[in-house]
Parts: sequence; C-alpha cells; structure tokens
Amino acid sequence: MNRLSKAPVGVIGANGYTGQELLRILAGHDGVEVVFATSDSASGEETAVAGLRLVPLLEARVEDVEVVFLCVPHGKAAEWVAAQGVNGVRIVDLSSDHRPGSGREDGVVYGLPELFRGRVVGSRFVANPGCYPTGVILALKPLVDRGLVADGPVIVDAASGVTGAGRTVRRDLLFAEVAGDYRAYSVGNVHRHLPEMRAVLAGVTLVFTAHLLPVARGILETMYVPLGAGVEAGAVRAAWLEAYAGERLVKVMAEGVPALADVVGTDRVALGVVGNAGVGSPLATVVVALDNLGKGASGQAVQNMNLMLGFPEHRGLRC
Amino acid sequence: MNRLSKAPVGVIGANGYTGQELLRILAGHDGVEVVFATSDSASGEETAVAGLRLVPLLEARVEDVEVVFLCVPHGKAAEWVAAQGVNGVRIVDLSSDHRPGSGREDGVVYGLPELFRGRVVGSRFVANPGCYPTGVILALKPLVDRGLVADGPVIVDAASGVTGAGRTVRRDLLFAEVAGDYRAYSVGNVHRHLPEMRAVLAGVTLVFTAHLLPVARGILETMYVPLGAGVEAGAVRAAWLEAYAGERLVKVMAEGVPALADVVGTDRVALGVVGNAGVGSPLATVVVALDNLGKGASGQAVQNMNLMLGFPEHRGLRC
Amino acid sequence: MNRLSKAPVGVIGANGYTGQELLRILAGHDGVEVVFATSDSASGEETAVAGLRLVPLLEARVEDVEVVFLCVPHGKAAEWVAAQGVNGVRIVDLSSDHRPGSGREDGVVYGLPELFRGRVVGSRFVANPGCYPTGVILALKPLVDRGLVADGPVIVDAASGVTGAGRTVRRDLLFAEVAGDYRAYSVGNVHRHLPEMRAVLAGVTLVFTAHLLPVARGILETMYVPLGAGVEAGAVRAAWLEAYAGERLVKVMAEGVPALADVVGTDRVALGVVGNAGVGSPLATVVVALDNLGKGASGQAVQNMNLMLGFPEHRGLRC
Amino acid sequence: MNRLSKAPVGVIGANGYTGQELLRILAGHDGVEVVFATSDSASGEETAVAGLRLVPLLEARVEDVEVVFLCVPHGKAAEWVAAQGVNGVRIVDLSSDHRPGSGREDGVVYGLPELFRGRVVGSRFVANPGCYPTGVILALKPLVDRGLVADGPVIVDAASGVTGAGRTVRRDLLFAEVAGDYRAYSVGNVHRHLPEMRAVLAGVTLVFTAHLLPVARGILETMYVPLGAGVEAGAVRAAWLEAYAGERLVKVMAEGVPALADVVGTDRVALGVVGNAGVGSPLATVVVALDNLGKGASGQAVQNMNLMLGFPEHRGLRC
Repeated sequence: MNRLSKAPVGVIGANGYTGQELLRILAGHDGVEVVFATSDSASGEETAVAGLRLVPLLEARVEDVEVVFLCVPHGKAAEWVAAQGVNGVRIVDLSSDHRPGSGREDGVVYGLPELFRGRVVGSRFVANPGCYPTGVILALKPLVDRGLVADGPVIVDAASGVTGAGRTVRRDLLFAEVAGDYRAYSVGNVHRHLPEMRAVLAGVTLVFTAHLLPVARGILETMYVPLGAGVEAGAVRAAWLEAYAGERLVKVMAEGVPALADVVGTDRVALGVVGNAGVGSPLATVVVALDNLGKGASGQAVQNMNLMLGFPEHRGLRC
Repeated sequence: MNRLSKAPVGVIGANGYTGQELLRILAGHDGVEVVFATSDSASGEETAVAGLRLVPLLEARVEDVEVVFLCVPHGKAAEWVAAQGVNGVRIVDLSSDHRPGSGREDGVVYGLPELFRGRVVGSRFVANPGCYPTGVILALKPLVDRGLVADGPVIVDAASGVTGAGRTVRRDLLFAEVAGDYRAYSVGNVHRHLPEMRAVLAGVTLVFTAHLLPVARGILETMYVPLGAGVEAGAVRAAWLEAYAGERLVKVMAEGVPALADVVGTDRVALGVVGNAGVGSPLATVVVALDNLGKGASGQAVQNMNLMLGFPEHRGLRC
Repeated sequence: MNRLSKAPVGVIGANGYTGQELLRILAGHDGVEVVFATSDSASGEETAVAGLRLVPLLEARVEDVEVVFLCVPHGKAAEWVAAQGVNGVRIVDLSSDHRPGSGREDGVVYGLPELFRGRVVGSRFVANPGCYPTGVILALKPLVDRGLVADGPVIVDAASGVTGAGRTVRRDLLFAEVAGDYRAYSVGNVHRHLPEMRAVLAGVTLVFTAHLLPVARGILETMYVPLGAGVEAGAVRAAWLEAYAGERLVKVMAEGVPALADVVGTDRVALGVVGNAGVGSPLATVVVALDNLGKGASGQAVQNMNLMLGFPEHRGLRC
Repeated sequence: MNRLSKAPVGVIGANGYTGQELLRILAGHDGVEVVFATSDSASGEETAVAGLRLVPLLEARVEDVEVVFLCVPHGKAAEWVAAQGVNGVRIVDLSSDHRPGSGREDGVVYGLPELFRGRVVGSRFVANPGCYPTGVILALKPLVDRGLVADGPVIVDAASGVTGAGRTVRRDLLFAEVAGDYRAYSVGNVHRHLPEMRAVLAGVTLVFTAHLLPVARGILETMYVPLGAGVEAGAVRAAWLEAYAGERLVKVMAEGVPALADVVGTDRVALGVVGNAGVGSPLATVVVALDNLGKGASGQAVQNMNLMLGFPEHRGLRC
C-alpha cells in the first residue's frame, strides 16, 4: 500500500492501562495519526500523544477514522458495537466480547497473527486475544497440531502483574495490599479466559490457575505438558522453531526458560521447554513469558492493525 | 520440666537471614538465653538480642550451651558436626545436611513436629526441614496416608521470596535484577529439595518447579493432586482437619486458598483446596502458604527446640 | 495497680491500617481484652484477635469498656465524641481531630509520652500524635528547649510509606501507580500536620514537604537544622541522650543516621545527626525513622493506654 | 551532514546498567552501528543489539569506530584514556573522571547540551554529566544566571533508584535489603558529585543529601531555594521557560511538581516549583525528576554523540 498520508485512528477507553499503552505505541508509529482518544472519567487530561487530550465518548467522531480500538471493559465493547454498527470503520476489540468461545465470534477474526495471519490481513473486525490465552495458545497449538501432546490434562500455572486486572480502583489492588503478597485467584478451573483457550485448542484438557504477582506488568505461564511416548523436549522446541520460523515477535529459547525480565516493555513472547527427570511418562515443563500490555494486549492490537491496513506487520512494535 | 533458670543456647552462622530471624524469635522467648551468635564475616556487629554481638566461630563455647542452632550453608553443617562431635550439646541443624535423603540422616530426627512429634520430644539432634518440603509434606502426607491420592504425578508449582536463597551476595539477587521480574529456576525436576520430599513421601511421583518472587519472604506452593475415583476436595480438607486437629501452627482454610499475606511474619502454615471443574478424573488444586523464615526455617527450629527441652511447644512463636 | 482481670477495650474503625495494627498489638497484650472492634464496611470479617469479628458501629457497647480507641478518619472522631459524650470511658483518639492546633484540644492530653509523660499518666482523653509530627517533635523539641537551634527555617524533607494515607481506595494508591514511583505531595508548606508541629514547637519556622514512598510502611524524615554559632552535631546528640535517657522507644544512633529497615515493624523511633561540611554557619542534618503504624500511630496509642490505665508503659510493645 | 553509511561506534564496559541502557538506545538509532561492546566479566553474552556479543576489552578495535563510549567505573575511564591516547576517536566518558571539579577537565567539554550546546557540537571529548548534577544544574543554573537566588545554602534532598549505584554486587544492594527500605547516604555534604555541581554553579552554597529508593531507576531531587526579596515561584518558572524554550528534553510543569513516573523510561528531565507559605523570606521548593539511566546517563550520552557527529540532536531519544 502506498499511502500519501497517515491513517486516522481512534481509541475508545484510553485511560486504562491497555489504552494508555496503546497510545504510547501509536505515538511512535509513523503511519497513523490518533485523532481521538476517549475517557468519560478523565476527559480533558493529556495523553501520550503530543497535543491530544482525552474526550468524552460522545465527542468521538468514528466516521473520521479508519480504525477504532476498543479498550473498554468486557461487556462494554459488545454494547458499543451494537449501538454503533460496524458500517465502514475497522475495529480492533481488545475486550473479550468477540473472542472465540464468547458466542459473538461470528464474522470476527481472531487476531493471533503468528497462527492466523492470513485471516487478519485486510480484515475489518478483529478480536484481539486475551493476555493469558496468547501465551498458552502460542505455546501449545504447534504441539497439538503435530500430535506431540498425550492425553491427560495440561496444567497451566500462570502469574500476572497487576495491570492485567485493569485500572479498576479496588481495595485488593492497593499498593499496601499487593506489595509483598502473592496469591492464586480463579482457582478451580473457572478463569474467564478458559472458553477462549478451549475454543482454539480443541481437544486439549486444560487446568488453568492464575496468580497475582507484585509487579506492574508481565505474564509468566509455567505449563506441564504430557507428551506422547518417546517424545522429548527437543521435539517441542523443534515444533516451535518450525511453526515460528522468521517470526520477529516469537523468541524460542535455545536452552532454558524465559523470565519476565526478558519481555517486559516489549511486544515479544518468549518460549522455553525443559524435560522432567524422574517421571514415568514424558512430561515437559514449558514456560512462556510476555508483557500483558505488549504482546498480551496493545502491542498485538497494533500488529493486527498493521495487517488490517497493509502496513509492515511490525511497524512501531518493540521486537 | 521445672526450670529455675533460662536455658543457654548458641547460634552458629547468625548473620544470614535464617540466623537473624532466629535471633529475633529467641530474643522474645522467655525460657532461653542466647549466649553466643557467630559470624566470621560480621563479627563485632550488634544482633537482635540486646547486649549480644556477633563473634567469630572460634570464640563460640559450645560447652556452655544446651542447644546449638546451625544456620550455616549446606555442607558446612556436616563439617561442623564432624569436627565438633555431638557429645553433650543438642543440635538443631537448619541446613539440608542431615535431612532425609541426604545420606547422613542416621540417628537424626526429622523435625516436622505436626507429623513426627513423638520423635522430636527430648531428642538430641534434629534436622530442621527445608522450606519448600515443609509445605509440600504437610499438605500431602495426610492425603497419602489415607489413600486419597491417585497414581500419576503430583505437580508442585512453587514460588519463594528471595530470602529463601540465603544472604549470598549474587548479581541475580540484586534489587535491580529481582524487582519487576519473576522467573522459574531448577526447572526439570532437579531441585535440591526433591530427595527430602521423596524420602518422606515415598511412593508419590513429584514434579517440582521453583520460582523466584520479587518479595523478601514467603512461599506459596500451588499443587495439582490427582485424587482417587470419587474423591472430592472436601475429603482433602477433612483429612487435614483430622490430621491437624488442635495444631496451632497449621491453619486449614474453611474455603478458598491462602495467600502469602496470610502467613508472612508468622510461624504458621496455611492450607487450602479447591476441586477443578471440567477435567475427566478428580484433580484438586492445593495451595500451601508459609513464611520461609518462619515455619519454613527459624520458627520451626524454635518449635523443635521447645520440644527437645521440654518447653511448651509454641512458646515464643507467632501462632 | 493490681488488676484481677483484664481491662476491656474497644476499637472504633478497626478495618483501616491503624485499626488492624492496633488489634495485632492488643492481641499480644496480656493486660487487656478487646471486646469489640467496629467497621461498617467490613462487619462480620475476622480480626487479628482470636474469636473477634468486626461489628457495625451501632453494635459497639461503649459502656462495657474502659478505653475506646478511635481509628476513624479525621473529622469522624470529633463527630463521635460530640455524639457520645465522654462520660466514663477513656479515649485514645488516633485521628487529628483533638491534637494541638486543631482548635479542639482543650481538656485533651497530647500523648507524646517521652515529652509529656506526666500529663498522660491516668488521663482520660488522649490525642495520639500524628505520624510525621511524632518524628519531627521528638527530634527538635530537646534542641529547641536547650537553645541549640538558630534562627531561620528548619527544612523537613519527609517520606512515608503508603499506609500513611490510610486504607482509602484511591486510584493513585493502586499498586501499578505506586510501584516504581516516588513523588512529593502537599508541596508549599501546606501539609495538614503543620498546625500540630507548630503548636508544640512554638517559635520554630518549619518548611515541611512530604513524599510518597513505594513501601507499605515506615517514615523517614531528613531535616536541615540551623544551629547556633559554635554548636556542633555532637551537641545535638548530647541533647537527645539527656532528654531520652532511659527511654526504651527512642534510639539515639551512636554514629550515622537510621534507615527505615531499623524501625519498620517496631514501636521505636530512631534519631541520628551529622554535621555538614562546607557551609558557612553550622547546619546539622538530622534523620528520624519510625514506623508510621508503630510509634507513629498504633504502638504509641497502646503506650498511651498503658499510661492511662497504670500498666507498665511498654507492655505489649516492640521495643 | 549527509552520511551515506552508519557511523561505527563502540562501548567499553557494556554489561553495567548504563552500558546496557546505552546499547538499547543505540540499537534503535538508525544513524549508528555498534561494532563492539566490551565486558571482561561477561564476554560472550548477547547484548540488546541484534547479532552483537560482548567481547573482552582487549578485542575492542578502537581504530574501527568514530566514537567510543566509556561506561566503566570511576577511575577506570581515566586509566583507559591514559593508555589509549585520544588520537582520532571521539570519546563520550560516562564516568566522573573528566568532569568539572575532577582535576582532569582540561580539553574536555562538559556535555550538558541545554546549557552548553555550542561547545558540544563537533567536539571530540565529552564528559557526560553525573545523574544527580544533571538535575541540580539544569534547575539552578538559569536561576543563578538571572540573579534570582538569595544568599544562604540551597538544600538538595535527593533520592535515586538502585541502578544509580551501578551493577556492583554488594550486600546492601540485594533485593531483600533494599525492598521496603529507604535510607540516606553520603550524609554530611560529602557526596562525590558535589565538586561537579560546585564547579558549574560557582557561588552557590550547596547542601546535598542522597537517599536510596526501593525502585530500579529514577531520580527525584527536592530543593529548597532561597529567593531574592520579592521573587516568587512564578519568576523561577519564567526563568526556566526562557532558558529552555524549544528544548525537547526539558519539561517545565505548568503547575505542581513532577514525579518519577513522569520520566522513568524516558530521556527527559522535568522541573516544577512551588512557593512556601509561612516562611519569612521567599523560599521556593523546586522538584526535578529524571531517569538516572536516561537523561542522567545513557540518554544524554547519545544526545552528546548526536551533537558531536552532526546528527539531529534528539535522534533515537525518548523525548
């Protein structure tokens, strides 16, 4: 695409953590111009985009932009789409409202480019994946597709920084409550991201537990994956290397496993695998790390936008 | 026991985190008097015990005390015992040198009072359990003993604050490296605490992964326990309630699971269990929380000392 | 006083940080029994006192207790006193409502025992000092009384952990906002604790700036004190040693200055002073450290209660 | 300058915090190519620059580059320059070895572009300013030059994140020592950055105290500045606005004062001022915030390099 001018875009719900991160990334993207960013609670405040202030939702002129990013809470995005219609404007929905398993995914593309790039290119309505599912699906899908995973549950023990909970003003998210603490939540395989993971990883039995880390950002998911007879950790790594050859945002560790520090502040995801000694049948420990605000939300949203508009896929991203 | 005066005790290696915590607890224990605390690197410095300064190991007069606590690094405790002999003085070894699975456990009592109290009472040489094993064993032993655990690996996904690594001056433990990070270590079922856990939990296949939390203290262990056919989470809780009836340092949650904040700064361990929906055969998520310096080390050491000397078991402890 | 039974006490507003810390201290005090603890927002929840649950304010039976602690927000304490009257029950008000400079201090004793012990003993209504003023006044009063301070402003650059702001659910106190940040507030000599400090330190020109630290608890106040001609840092230390001889909760550093780590989790305050080279007239840097929830609030409240009821002054405190 | 190819540069001492940050910035700078990065302790490890690994100092081919950045500890930079000579290559020295007040500043340009840009342009040897002095000098120099500052000491109460201490492996920089703590250091007006500040701010009496913050990065300096009779805070702001008109890396707050969160991760410095009520003669509270690794070190080093080589001044920087 040979553009003569910048593509105008808008952000609905720009005062939360994903909205703010999105504006920071877009401010450094030379192919787009943010023409509005809304927040009913903080209208009038400055944003990360020079010269742009937050406006109330009612002042957003959707007809002026090519792409709208929905950074509103879950439930609100579907409401907005229902009220607005999808006539004309392209949509990247960062909420869970239109993801696989939501019941509203018809006609919506699931925006995980490394697995479904062909569908994203040029599309008009993308559901941006959840932060936890991004890591789980990128790690497991190539293994499932190649028949490496044995029967039996795949345990996912996941931990996220507090921005994953959004910028909600809740007592349990106060500094004095979180600092020095670490706790499990959504215990019992009831996390709201499970339908999304199950829809994409059909046939895999998942057991997923989330934990709240005393850090601002980052997700680490430690997974225990039963492998077929004779399958070793090297085969897992080989599957990833094949599936993600040439991918700039997926880093497969040559040895060992990644840590939060490898990915926080970037739009990458990192994968590592180690086999376990002393267990009867093969069981791999897989560790995935990503920034919940980068590849887990706003970075991936920009990646999707790039594909929708015909820009180079990684423009503006922190590879 | 009707003592007329305080029992004299000594601490070898008192400048590490477990040694310092031990001195803080002993300073508030009205049945003992700390008569020496050694540190070759910091001799001359004040301790948490009023009027007591650190002395070099050579100045410790072991013949003056009834109990010696060994808070030295792993390997050094066995050296000390070999050089010193065990004539006379009682020993609580906080290192891993004489624990089950170490090869040096003959004639040494494993000091996990809630499970092996009878052996600890009046004993002369106690191996104080490791921090990770304390939680794993207290959670699983009652289940194993009652036949609730099915075949197949028990996954233990554990996380510890940095004092668990000791007060070693290492680059990877610097504030600027740890803050904002979270990482797995000893991945691949090779953690040095595994022999201890396996020796006590004979017959259980364990898969253990440790993680480093950006907090000073506390351990949370999230375990995935396959249960026998028809066994539900309630049976797990019932087993704990039976095994730990009347125990002041073991808290079984009536519902949900414990967090670090429930136990940091105390000598308690807390246990919780939740069943998992959507898995074929029964699988429970068990969460154990303890302070690695409390029930995981120095608190338990004082509990053992109390039993060895005939004091009330919980004297001086933060129940 | 020769008590045959425990003194019954009650806590109004027991779910904030000072209320919770107070209950923890009282739970370990063997001379009192907490018979009620109120919280309208969290009634029914457990407290740090075994067997005690939070009740709504309306269920508090003030006539059953000897002492009431008011841990309610500023403004609410005066309301409570006005509605309740002070007939009978002794009061320790942890809010600022009845402190010097409040306009409501008539008939109320200022509970800073190291300076005004005689008035506190046996008194019936004590205003517990503010956290920042406790440090500033304990440091400066002995110097002012001895004529060591020269004319000119005393600069107080103070920093506090977030529990100093109370357990209010505010966006700016969320973990993701506070972690990694440090900021000044109440800049311009307008902090609400200034009237209290000025009332007690009459004649001193104070310039006070507060900062929010990314820690849960602790206050460090770095003060720049102009000294009279020929007065050196040693004279400052000598004044403290004289004023606080025998005080168990005031630690005067033999050299250097104290840090948060020296006092957090205790009820002590620590003082240190260093002279400044290369300035024309004598100027001392004074550093004071205390735990805002200990000596800065709940610890001092128990110290006052002990004096009011005739207990040993430091019973139950972490000296 | 119309370059046909990228300028080759090298980094000596690239494994410390300033070295790593410098490599991150240079990796995103499209006008330069990093051809070597040295570290004797970590040679062989990957860097932030794709395809570049650390090499031992002996393998650095200085003759191949146009600019060398010295990120070695204080003292080592002067040694390197003495051994190497300055024939040919341009040097940006991030250590304090050649700064004003060092005794080695002859023939070296002080690289604070907003104040001394003319000297930096095209120069061959730049001493990059210290992190604390950058803030103090940028705040005070315009006020001194305009005669706004009255006699009497200017108090600077400064706080820095731990990367300011370098990546030295010291016990007092361990996570478990720093987390939850806050402490003053170099108390008594003896900080090693004072000669640099005094050399540039001739005539000002400085009293400087540093504190260690439990954050990875960022500096906040709260200054108490005596102003001439009748001078108000507005005049301070006006002086800055005049001095820094058009500067992209200096942000003057329209009102209030900046916080760490405003600058961490950027190469900006932010300035704010508030007058103090209730003091006899005018006294302003000035707050300066910067990232010690950005404008306080590596960001400013790249800014200097840009001016030395004729690039646009802010290329590659996070304005």
